[in-house]
Amino acid sequence: MIDLYTFTTPNGRKVSILLEELGISYNVHKIDITQGQQFSPDFVEINPNSKIPAIIDHETEITVFESGAILMYLAEKTGKLLPRETKSRYQVIEWLMFQMASVGPMFGQFNHFNRFAPEKVPYAIARYEQETLRLYGVLDGQLADRSYIAGEDYSIADIALYPWVASYEFMGLTLEKHPHLKRWVEILQERPAVQRGMAVPA
Amino acid sequence: MIDLYTFTTPNGRKVSILLEELGISYNVHKIDITQGQQFSPDFVEINPNSKIPAIIDHETEITVFESGAILMYLAEKTGKLLPRETKSRYQVIEWLMFQMASVGPMFGQFNHFNRFAPEKVPYAIARYEQETLRLYGVLDGQLADRSYIAGEDYSIADIALYPWVASYEFMGLTLEKHPHLKRWVEILQERPAVQRGMAVPA
Repeated sequence: MIDLYTFTTPNGRKVSILLEELGISYNVHKIDITQGQQFSPDFVEINPNSKIPAIIDHETEITVFESGAILMYLAEKTGKLLPRETKSRYQVIEWLMFQMASVGPMFGQFNHFNRFAPEKVPYAIARYEQETLRLYGVLDGQLADRSYIAGEDYSIADIALYPWVASYEFMGLTLEKHPHLKRWVEILQERPAVQRGMAVPA
Repeated sequence: MIDLYTFTTPNGRKVSILLEELGISYNVHKIDITQGQQFSPDFVEINPNSKIPAIIDHETEITVFESGAILMYLAEKTGKLLPRETKSRYQVIEWLMFQMASVGPMFGQFNHFNRFAPEKVPYAIARYEQETLRLYGVLDGQLADRSYIAGEDYSIADIALYPWVASYEFMGLTLEKHPHLKRWVEILQERPAVQRGMAVPA
């Protein structure tokens, strides 16, 4: 049994999608970050960085935080969605890292300045919108001649990217100029496990 | 033989430090990002995201981009600085992901707004300075009762963090309020491989 500490954000949903894909049963613990619950002593014990998601795997008594680490942990535990053969393995890991280092942080900064910041900063809005569109272009180019982001097989790199890319309407953007990326979003959103994972936490 | 495509940035130096620690011989290819060389067709072929670092391992003919993926690749190739035992392995990977997802992007945004942006945006400078100091605090807390970031053993998580944390003076900051982090920087900067790696590219 896995305890999943999560909230209604793209980083949280990466993990619930993967758990659904793997058919692993899990308990959802909602950490309401709008109420500051990520700073509670109990949660800081689980993740000293006060961020969701985190898991506790009661089979191994291992705690893991950082969504990218959790995806790798669950994939290695089950032998699924992350190849063992070195070349294809690192194609998945490099795109997972690209999501962790660029897509998540930059889309997140765009959302902050575009929607949440208490003051309007045109320079920052333009900076992060431009970077978001550049990243859409990188993904679109990669998907122009392969089915999934790291090749012909669905992997944890797709799962890491999906909740961030699929939120384009929330971000006030469109995928019309990125047809390969749009096709990929449409294929992923048909997966029952993706649909179930995106609905967590209730 | 490894071809390393890099520049004088923290992300580039993570890889040169690790190559020095592992004693692997490598050819340095300087990609001058101040001249836009990362957008050349030859480099985009290596990394479609136009970022340094990237490597080509001629022993396996595998190309890897994203510094976090390269660190894992070289550690797995050599069996060093990333444990195989699951619990300690994931302690390293979660802190590596923390560096990739938070320390790199947030310190980078602070540098942008504090040093490089063409206009002064006090809100953004304050936002990223505050987040940088919060991240210093997380690292300081983690190092209060262990020698290295993921435990008693030096690992690729330390190597990923070092060039970013060691640049505190460039960032106009001090580590005086974070004594455990300061001690860790001082220990790492004594390592000959760290000194050699930090001098790449010449």
